[in-house]
Amino acid sequence: MNEKDCFGIVGGDKRQIALAESIAADGYRVYVYGFDLAEEIRGVVLADWKDGFDPCETVILPLPVMATKGFLNAPYSSEKIPLNDVFAEKLRDKMVFGGRLRPVYATSPVWNAIEARDYSEREEFAVCNAISTAEGAIQTAMESYEGTLHGSSCLVAGFGRIGKALSWMLRGIGADVTVSARKASDLAWIELYGYRAVRTEEIRGRYDLVFNTIPAPVFSQRVLEWMPSDTILIDLASLPGGIDAAAAEKLGLRMIRALSLPGKVAPKSAGEIIKETVYNMMEEA
Amino acid sequence: MNEKDCFGIVGGDKRQIALAESIAADGYRVYVYGFDLAEEIRGVVLADWKDGFDPCETVILPLPVMATKGFLNAPYSSEKIPLNDVFAEKLRDKMVFGGRLRPVYATSPVWNAIEARDYSEREEFAVCNAISTAEGAIQTAMESYEGTLHGSSCLVAGFGRIGKALSWMLRGIGADVTVSARKASDLAWIELYGYRAVRTEEIRGRYDLVFNTIPAPVFSQRVLEWMPSDTILIDLASLPGGIDAAAAEKLGLRMIRALSLPGKVAPKSAGEIIKETVYNMMEEA
Amino acid sequence: MNEKDCFGIVGGDKRQIALAESIAADGYRVYVYGFDLAEEIRGVVLADWKDGFDPCETVILPLPVMATKGFLNAPYSSEKIPLNDVFAEKLRDKMVFGGRLRPVYATSPVWNAIEARDYSEREEFAVCNAISTAEGAIQTAMESYEGTLHGSSCLVAGFGRIGKALSWMLRGIGADVTVSARKASDLAWIELYGYRAVRTEEIRGRYDLVFNTIPAPVFSQRVLEWMPSDTILIDLASLPGGIDAAAAEKLGLRMIRALSLPGKVAPKSAGEIIKETVYNMMEEA
Amino acid sequence: MNEKDCFGIVGGDKRQIALAESIAADGYRVYVYGFDLAEEIRGVVLADWKDGFDPCETVILPLPVMATKGFLNAPYSSEKIPLNDVFAEKLRDKMVFGGRLRPVYATSPVWNAIEARDYSEREEFAVCNAISTAEGAIQTAMESYEGTLHGSSCLVAGFGRIGKALSWMLRGIGADVTVSARKASDLAWIELYGYRAVRTEEIRGRYDLVFNTIPAPVFSQRVLEWMPSDTILIDLASLPGGIDAAAAEKLGLRMIRALSLPGKVAPKSAGEIIKETVYNMMEEA
Repeated sequence: MNEKDCFGIVGGDKRQIALAESIAADGYRVYVYGFDLAEEIRGVVLADWKDGFDPCETVILPLPVMATKGFLNAPYSSEKIPLNDVFAEKLRDKMVFGGRLRPVYATSPVWNAIEARDYSEREEFAVCNAISTAEGAIQTAMESYEGTLHGSSCLVAGFGRIGKALSWMLRGIGADVTVSARKASDLAWIELYGYRAVRTEEIRGRYDLVFNTIPAPVFSQRVLEWMPSDTILIDLASLPGGIDAAAAEKLGLRMIRALSLPGKVAPKSAGEIIKETVYNMMEEA
Repeated sequence: MNEKDCFGIVGGDKRQIALAESIAADGYRVYVYGFDLAEEIRGVVLADWKDGFDPCETVILPLPVMATKGFLNAPYSSEKIPLNDVFAEKLRDKMVFGGRLRPVYATSPVWNAIEARDYSEREEFAVCNAISTAEGAIQTAMESYEGTLHGSSCLVAGFGRIGKALSWMLRGIGADVTVSARKASDLAWIELYGYRAVRTEEIRGRYDLVFNTIPAPVFSQRVLEWMPSDTILIDLASLPGGIDAAAAEKLGLRMIRALSLPGKVAPKSAGEIIKETVYNMMEEA
Repeated sequence: MNEKDCFGIVGGDKRQIALAESIAADGYRVYVYGFDLAEEIRGVVLADWKDGFDPCETVILPLPVMATKGFLNAPYSSEKIPLNDVFAEKLRDKMVFGGRLRPVYATSPVWNAIEARDYSEREEFAVCNAISTAEGAIQTAMESYEGTLHGSSCLVAGFGRIGKALSWMLRGIGADVTVSARKASDLAWIELYGYRAVRTEEIRGRYDLVFNTIPAPVFSQRVLEWMPSDTILIDLASLPGGIDAAAAEKLGLRMIRALSLPGKVAPKSAGEIIKETVYNMMEEA
Repeated sequence: MNEKDCFGIVGGDKRQIALAESIAADGYRVYVYGFDLAEEIRGVVLADWKDGFDPCETVILPLPVMATKGFLNAPYSSEKIPLNDVFAEKLRDKMVFGGRLRPVYATSPVWNAIEARDYSEREEFAVCNAISTAEGAIQTAMESYEGTLHGSSCLVAGFGRIGKALSWMLRGIGADVTVSARKASDLAWIELYGYRAVRTEEIRGRYDLVFNTIPAPVFSQRVLEWMPSDTILIDLASLPGGIDAAAAEKLGLRMIRALSLPGKVAPKSAGEIIKETVYNMMEEA
């Protein structure tokens, strides 16, 4: 990386603040735009986006770039920041990074001329986010469950990134962990890591806590009927999730939908993850 | 244990409710006294303490037995229950268990004729409570810290029961764990379990989170001055604790005092622990 | 699976013996062929391959099926068993399973009419074998290294199946584990699981033990020159391996080539793995 | 420690060689006595014990100091070294450390005037040795058992130092670990660490491997009769051990007596442990 690199952090929430501070702590110059409502951000220069993003060569937009249609995701800005031709023009000739970038291309034809890349599509970003999500799920479980997770019986449905991170941590604090998967090779890995394995289509039995990570209707009424009434269900899969909420309610089961955990429970780590991913992308460029 | 045993659960908080339900689920008859304000308690008979505790042969009092001087610790009772000669008489010829029993002996001379034992003084009770405390400390840390514990740098001061349980769990979720102790043999154990070891008198350096379990003034101003300003300090040692609160405040360090965690974060497990300890004591009797 | 299934176990080493005993213990009828030199095999019927494999509906051949060109891999048979048209004819209308089956197709055109499947190509077989290989590598290391693995500094090169299993176990016994990989996402996983991560192309530094799992020339003379002279190198990658043996010798480094570990160190587990894989394949059939 | 300290390493096996090299690597001057048959010892000066131990201020004797009655334990010396008045005189005014020192006091009255301390009686020495013993036990098990320890069912009898270290490591490589103890508090710790707990007096059931650490007749014929015939028994307790060898043989069970493992499997670590313990003792002096 060029020692003279200067970064512009434009919009976003606590994650972008952590990102800005962390890049500054690495010794780079950092300008932040859209943060006039934020408390102190250490080591950076506050600047006004209306003046453009010079002298920054690299600009990092938030995740997601656009929360409300047509506007930058910028909760710490006192003014709304419109995503339009004027905004896009300011990014010309910059190296631009953003999270869930795709929708912004519809806001201005200028975007087609901008060298922009999406960090949220990178595999290492997804892996690191899975850690935060897993830890957020554990915090949620601790807050909800009246026993200790240590010694409790937990089911993790799905052995993708979040399932892997979550089962590892649950075993680490002493829970009795069962993990479900469909593929025989995943079931073999599950046993390697010291968990009990169960085929997803054969989920039965009694658990104190059920964590779903599968974005498909796995926990139908038929499956939920097997659960004791004090089972706690935590759905981590993106909407509509994998647990039949209506059936859960009818059966008197407690269900918690836990989404976007990294930004909520660990903004500092989330900022670090964005930074590391962007650094990786810059090195590969 | 005698199949005909009948238990009386007298006073206490959610832990005693969990205890009552758990004993009932083991197939014993259970009467509860002092719970007219509680929601449903499954599998038990509600009874009035004024009528005495027959037919129960075994009576379990809460932890602590006496919270306000002269009265039973009974937050779910609409009436205050005085600890006096009348109350003590009802316990004659029962096998009585209680937590922190000693102060009740001053409430009536009858107590000297009662066969009463203190479960809170048992070693296995303390060990199991350490697990709950450790898990409560982790929950507290997750709620306070803006990063993930996974990958964070944690110091656990002290390698007693809570230090052992806490360091084990922290490593289990992927924190970078340093543990302090004074004895060379403890330092050897600390390394065996895969943590970094540091002598308590040489605590220095930068940690994201510091957990104190030592009931002695370890974290004096001189030690706290080594800490970066965003370190989070969690004091688990009983009052007055081991962290100089005034110095911490002066230095701008965030300090959290976390006491009586088992009853707060995991009443269900706390009830189980009391039950197992009482069962052990009955077997040995 | 059909309760009436009868299995023929034909040729092979201790793994096939363990396989035969394990299937028999599941309640199936098992005939073994090519084992007249073996000690007692519990629960099976010894039979002569020359009479054909009836009444077995399912026949399991060894891994590999052919060790010496033109002959069945059958070290416990007093006679050599030729792989030819006669042998192949005996398998017609059977359900045949074998390990590394491909070369046998050249031994007779009859094979094209046989319903044969290769269990060694299954993912779950490979995963379970990775566990055995990892454990064999640890045993090899313990036998070679004059210190304890606990507290030693270990490098695992490669984060494929064997790298994953090996690093997990090494950490489990308290080694200080560094794992190398090339992909950023693998490096993220490595950190998730609590190991140090290093890019494969930047391997440097001092380790007590180096385990290579990468079948490519990673440990060239240039890399080996970084190693202290008492480093122990264990090459687990299939021939020609990933460590420059000549350079290692020139530099005075101790190098051990450890191949085919599962069959050597854990034939019983290896037999279990074949059984589970074959059962899975039969269920899917 | 005094920078000018000069150490004399007198007699002993590979552990003393490792000790000498390790002290030399710390920058001290080291003289070795009784090693004329040894291969190269790095960084030390070979000297003749007959000339006395000057200029060394500190002398470290082996563990045990005396193997054959009346002679120093010195397998690498071409001549026998008698423990008598002459030898003892050479140690006057030195600071002497040794392992199992007590019997040498009978070899000369001069010993009463020597400032000698026993490192083998130190708690941290015992803890670190327990790690080596545990790892040696695992190596022994891997060499004996035809399956993988991963996934095997292991019983560790006793939760003293070796039991603690061994169960931790066995779980770490993925065995299914049951630990026996007598005290309720130990049973609570066992569960904390994620193992199954069983009372020593109620040991029953089927295990692939049984590790005994209790120096008392726990595994009597009556208990051994519960074991399947392919159970492997490894007795780590000092003689006469805790397993009835005659009964085991009669029942056809395979029993391995594994003693003095640290010196055998990990002399380098054993030397480190002696060094660390001696350093601790010097600091405290």
